[in-house]
Amino acid sequence: MEESYPLDLSGERFTATYRIVGNAEEAMSKAGDICIEQTVEFPGDLLPKGGIADGMPGRIESFAPLADGRSDVIISYPVEAAGRELLQLLNVLYGNISMEPGVRLQRFDLSPTLSKIWRGPRFGRDGLRRLFDVPTRPLLCTALKPMGLSAAELGKMAHQIALGGIDMIKDDHGLADQALSPYKERVQRCCEGVLAANQKTGYHCGYIPNVTAPFDQLMERAVFAKKSGAAALVITPALAGWDAVRCLADSDEIGLPILCHPAYGGSYITSPTNGIAPYAFYGQMTRLMGADAVIFINWGGRFSVNRADCIDIARGTEEPLGTMKSIFPVPGGGMTIGRVDELYKVYGKEVIILVGGGLHRQSRNVTEASRYFRSMVEKIG
Amino acid sequence: MEESYPLDLSGERFTATYRIVGNAEEAMSKAGDICIEQTVEFPGDLLPKGGIADGMPGRIESFAPLADGRSDVIISYPVEAAGRELLQLLNVLYGNISMEPGVRLQRFDLSPTLSKIWRGPRFGRDGLRRLFDVPTRPLLCTALKPMGLSAAELGKMAHQIALGGIDMIKDDHGLADQALSPYKERVQRCCEGVLAANQKTGYHCGYIPNVTAPFDQLMERAVFAKKSGAAALVITPALAGWDAVRCLADSDEIGLPILCHPAYGGSYITSPTNGIAPYAFYGQMTRLMGADAVIFINWGGRFSVNRADCIDIARGTEEPLGTMKSIFPVPGGGMTIGRVDELYKVYGKEVIILVGGGLHRQSRNVTEASRYFRSMVEKIG
Repeated sequence: MEESYPLDLSGERFTATYRIVGNAEEAMSKAGDICIEQTVEFPGDLLPKGGIADGMPGRIESFAPLADGRSDVIISYPVEAAGRELLQLLNVLYGNISMEPGVRLQRFDLSPTLSKIWRGPRFGRDGLRRLFDVPTRPLLCTALKPMGLSAAELGKMAHQIALGGIDMIKDDHGLADQALSPYKERVQRCCEGVLAANQKTGYHCGYIPNVTAPFDQLMERAVFAKKSGAAALVITPALAGWDAVRCLADSDEIGLPILCHPAYGGSYITSPTNGIAPYAFYGQMTRLMGADAVIFINWGGRFSVNRADCIDIARGTEEPLGTMKSIFPVPGGGMTIGRVDELYKVYGKEVIILVGGGLHRQSRNVTEASRYFRSMVEKIG
Repeated sequence: MEESYPLDLSGERFTATYRIVGNAEEAMSKAGDICIEQTVEFPGDLLPKGGIADGMPGRIESFAPLADGRSDVIISYPVEAAGRELLQLLNVLYGNISMEPGVRLQRFDLSPTLSKIWRGPRFGRDGLRRLFDVPTRPLLCTALKPMGLSAAELGKMAHQIALGGIDMIKDDHGLADQALSPYKERVQRCCEGVLAANQKTGYHCGYIPNVTAPFDQLMERAVFAKKSGAAALVITPALAGWDAVRCLADSDEIGLPILCHPAYGGSYITSPTNGIAPYAFYGQMTRLMGADAVIFINWGGRFSVNRADCIDIARGTEEPLGTMKSIFPVPGGGMTIGRVDELYKVYGKEVIILVGGGLHRQSRNVTEASRYFRSMVEKIG
């Protein structure tokens, strides 16, 4: 390798904020490691002089010790490191450093060039409100379950729920293409069930199938959903791949809103000292991928999560991120109709309220339960 | 929903072992939650009586309190819950429960039916040894870097390394399709460089491009690699998606060995109380996907990991998993040539030793450094 390497970088950089465990000296040292690890991954003193040594590694832009003994460090990277690919951007932000305990990615900020590469959500909050004809109140969502019901049974349940006026009726994330309820049959039955209900009620309820599918079948399933009359798609990106969401969002042939489900991705957010902060993981990254709504676990449900993190997620769905649209936070994971007021107080009207099993707890008659859920939310306005 | 639901399950079940934080009572309670959460995700008392209530939820098969205050719980699930899809199997094993602190997936065991669905690695250890013509000694691997070098420079470096006899010359995982070194040009240059070196030396060195790529371009890049003469592929499944590996492995058109890179997936393994044990995450799951070798961070390098976990990973690559082939552990992350003896003592000969930046530290003349690396490993036999 030549001693001097004539690399010409644009000089434009994007930034990531890391929260690092340790005293100031330790945190600065680790920040220096991150600069190398996330880019050149090469002994700093052996880097070719010139453009590579000067421009390719991360650069510490600010360092702020926190009261809890950690430090927030902002590191900038050249846009050329991310190129034009979402996965490589994620790789620069958090690839190798995911393996180092005591480093948490708190947030990232795109540069002008990167903001133009990814267009983010196709619909966003306004688009979803138009599609589901819900101008101001929170949207209502539930999940078809339990696993084990046949496609016919699920279609019937979708019909009954739609009669009660739940806006968004999604597959439970565990419904894939099992023999119990094959994907295509389920999609057809559920689309028919919801359509028949809408014709009676005049509502704009929609069925949202799960397209978390084998790599080589995912797009085909989404196209099938579109042709069958699905209103949107739900996908679990930690299983199917982050860029699958981008690909669905970018497809003009499909052109449906996308909800992201958080399954299998919890390891990124359960530790306060590792992983990715909920703000960035659910708020920023999901928008970047192109989802229109992000499901996450709300506090006080079946899982142990804290209120502050949930509020941070909602912030992440709407704070400026390039020129990307705001998306809906979808708190779930054991919510009940009795908590509608509390959720409204925290999230306001810009929220999709997801009540799954809680709907069935409300009443054995799921149409009645759905009507009640809707009435409680309509009270809000 | 009917009160009694006539679901006919086969009765065949597969199992997962979870390590749960808490005293016996707490752990048993949480284990009960897992049984519901990973399958029907529905209030247990409201499940339709009959097949669903009896057969669909997970079932606690054994419970073993540990000395450290945690408990190991084995839970079985009906094969019908996983269906025939890798992602849904992963979802049942760890989907929602990934979001609950204090639960770690330790290992899983397939049932006869599931063992037949996924064939796992196409090549495995024996296949890789044949392809690279390395009958008994550890295989040698290095990475092309730093990011910022042009495709021509990287091709030249690949040539120089191959002259020194490194078996496997892979892209650094940060080389994607950036303008700095566009994918296709890099693949062609590096394939040519390695081929030209082999013609001089008589070695069977191979170039291994990184196919971590946009969802809709990944397979096309792999096909291009195959046509250009690449020897294998490297992919980062935590970025590209777990099933992308399965898809590459199953493709007869591509038919190349696959190395998995651990970037972006560290959050699964950095916490001792959450996530997935390294044995299962790197050893079992990577094989299940169909990879032939799994890169992981070795202790004593740039990252904080412990020796016991590394040994567990190596065990996971070879202990029985259905009828799947054993694959190679690839310890890396700051290894140096000086540690070859130590690695041999721990891993034996069934290992691929990955020295990246350490090769350049050895000598500015990378052919000399490669020759030295090879000589140190050949001493082992």
